[in-house]
Amino acid sequence: MAEIYLDNSATTKIIPQAADAMAEAGSLVYGNPSSLHGKGLEAEKLLKGTREILAGNLSCTPEEIFFTSGGTESNNWAILGSLHRRRRRRGKHVITTKIEHPSVLKVCQYLEEEGYQVTYLGTDSTGIIDLEELKENLREDTVLVSVMYVNNETGAIQPVEEIGRFLKEARRDIVFHVDAVQAFGKIPLNPAKAGIDLLSLSAHKIHGPKGVGALFIRKGVAVDSLLRGGEQENGMRPGTENVPGIAAFGAAVKFIPKWLEESSRVYSLKEQLIKLLRKRVPEMVVNGSPDRAIPYIVNLSFPGIKGEVLVHYLEQYGIYVSTGSACHSRSGGSSHVLTALGLDKERLEGAIRVSFSYFNRPEEIEQAAGKIADAVIDLQSLR
Amino acid sequence: MAEIYLDNSATTKIIPQAADAMAEAGSLVYGNPSSLHGKGLEAEKLLKGTREILAGNLSCTPEEIFFTSGGTESNNWAILGSLHRRRRRRGKHVITTKIEHPSVLKVCQYLEEEGYQVTYLGTDSTGIIDLEELKENLREDTVLVSVMYVNNETGAIQPVEEIGRFLKEARRDIVFHVDAVQAFGKIPLNPAKAGIDLLSLSAHKIHGPKGVGALFIRKGVAVDSLLRGGEQENGMRPGTENVPGIAAFGAAVKFIPKWLEESSRVYSLKEQLIKLLRKRVPEMVVNGSPDRAIPYIVNLSFPGIKGEVLVHYLEQYGIYVSTGSACHSRSGGSSHVLTALGLDKERLEGAIRVSFSYFNRPEEIEQAAGKIADAVIDLQSLR
Repeated sequence: MAEIYLDNSATTKIIPQAADAMAEAGSLVYGNPSSLHGKGLEAEKLLKGTREILAGNLSCTPEEIFFTSGGTESNNWAILGSLHRRRRRRGKHVITTKIEHPSVLKVCQYLEEEGYQVTYLGTDSTGIIDLEELKENLREDTVLVSVMYVNNETGAIQPVEEIGRFLKEARRDIVFHVDAVQAFGKIPLNPAKAGIDLLSLSAHKIHGPKGVGALFIRKGVAVDSLLRGGEQENGMRPGTENVPGIAAFGAAVKFIPKWLEESSRVYSLKEQLIKLLRKRVPEMVVNGSPDRAIPYIVNLSFPGIKGEVLVHYLEQYGIYVSTGSACHSRSGGSSHVLTALGLDKERLEGAIRVSFSYFNRPEEIEQAAGKIADAVIDLQSLR
Repeated sequence: MAEIYLDNSATTKIIPQAADAMAEAGSLVYGNPSSLHGKGLEAEKLLKGTREILAGNLSCTPEEIFFTSGGTESNNWAILGSLHRRRRRRGKHVITTKIEHPSVLKVCQYLEEEGYQVTYLGTDSTGIIDLEELKENLREDTVLVSVMYVNNETGAIQPVEEIGRFLKEARRDIVFHVDAVQAFGKIPLNPAKAGIDLLSLSAHKIHGPKGVGALFIRKGVAVDSLLRGGEQENGMRPGTENVPGIAAFGAAVKFIPKWLEESSRVYSLKEQLIKLLRKRVPEMVVNGSPDRAIPYIVNLSFPGIKGEVLVHYLEQYGIYVSTGSACHSRSGGSSHVLTALGLDKERLEGAIRVSFSYFNRPEEIEQAAGKIADAVIDLQSLR
């Protein structure tokens, strides 16, 4: 039974080029990048080259790229590091949204325990926040705004460029952080132009390996380290660098221009899936608005069917989808993202996320649509 | 020219078994361990298996093992997480040593900025701290003791078992953290028996990959998370796990019993090197005491010769040694470890660290000794 993997927002298959880079760097470039001798310099050179690849992709300088252990660390670092740097100032107000990833939301909850005030912006029914609401909530003592670029459950694209432009004109004193983990490789990113100060990235969402990420820190933006120790990453992120992981990250990033160029092909996979399912399950609802989202994610509800049951039904046929974010799939409870969209209980419980990759083929979508429809009809008949 | 790599305390070559595990897990076990479906369970199972391998090695339970991005994160987490958990208590005093790794020392400096008091214990001339001095410095308000197991520059074995036994008898309220990064794989570890509450480990010092480590947290010891986010690692360490790196870590740990069994062979390499060098450079000094150190590290001074010059001289012949810790080799300045031993300026500047691995052979040591002696004699003649 061939696998049809449609859970690419949880994680992606590593591409062979990244796997090869990981293997090669792991075995051959084994020196410690901080060592003074030639084996160290080889590793340091590899890091430098990868930093340049990322910088090229983000239209920034290599000195603005800092490697981390992944998106969660990048988000924690961005928020805690910029606030720690500004802790002596008056400002203790942060603005974020209700639909952020747990690695932003939990940090904000922690900030509240530490005496900060946090405003959580809501969304409209398509899952998008409102720039005007953000403006209204800005305060004299606002020090940080953190908004994700693309939501991981609905694919909704947030108006981060507009926010960035506005903040850079009206409030240059505010640090603007963007979690771009789900946007990277799917939307062209130019953080400096978009007025973004800090941008979080992850490798395993773009066919690179797990355990690697990066934080873009715009030149001139002061951020304290999250971890303390050695002088790695220009003194900003201590610990021996994950050389094989970073090499693989770079190998994956090199493919982004190609993926962006062909994203209309992915969009047609999404359209195909919706069309085929609508035909057989007319009561299906699309959560959020597919037109205001990236092509890679679609969130669907089948009234009367529990999403979790559907996920397990489909995996019997080698089809992998999810109920929502993997990061708290085990903890149970309803999706905080879909709740923010104002969905009722039935639609909340009946939601599944189908997330595509560049490598999915129309034949796979056809098969998956068939099995999803079979499953829904089967499960409906059991009620 | 064959490479002779004698900088194994900076980092080690990955063994083929670990490289294979990394490649296989990276490509085949590509699911997100938090996903509910079969691809997620495959990855979760691999993590579980690796946790069991580590637990077997440390004679602890799998639930006491938490994977991290490396030794630096483990040290930061252990110290900051246990103090954050106890921040409402009266205790603001920490005891550590002058010879810790920067990922402990810099955290302690940060603690001092935050209002903690830190006592830094010195060492005798062999680089070993004194249990009695530790006892004398204990205070009513001491909350944490952090002592490394094996020093990374001299190889000196610290009396952590004695400290642990003493603290468990006299002061059960104090958290005892041990940085075991340089001890793991070289000394049999049984943290619970040694009275250790928190133990930091790293994969790339034991022929595993860079970018992975672990923290042992003894059952019942309360520690806050360092990072905040998803529910991974039993809610203690968020972020999608580095599945390929963790798989490779486990593959390396499996070899530890064999390496421990044959450590006398490594000891004879160290003896061989010292003997051969003494014959040709009688003024050479061994820093610290080889008999109170692990066989894997020897620190040598050649009066009148700068360690850095020697490192670069030797790398021309494919022989890789270091002046001290890689983690701050680029920042310059004298070694804080050798300074703590009371070495004079000439010996400090003339120090090199030769660090062996299980895989070094007597022929390599013979060649390296010959070249080191040649280099010293050459460089002396240039003065």
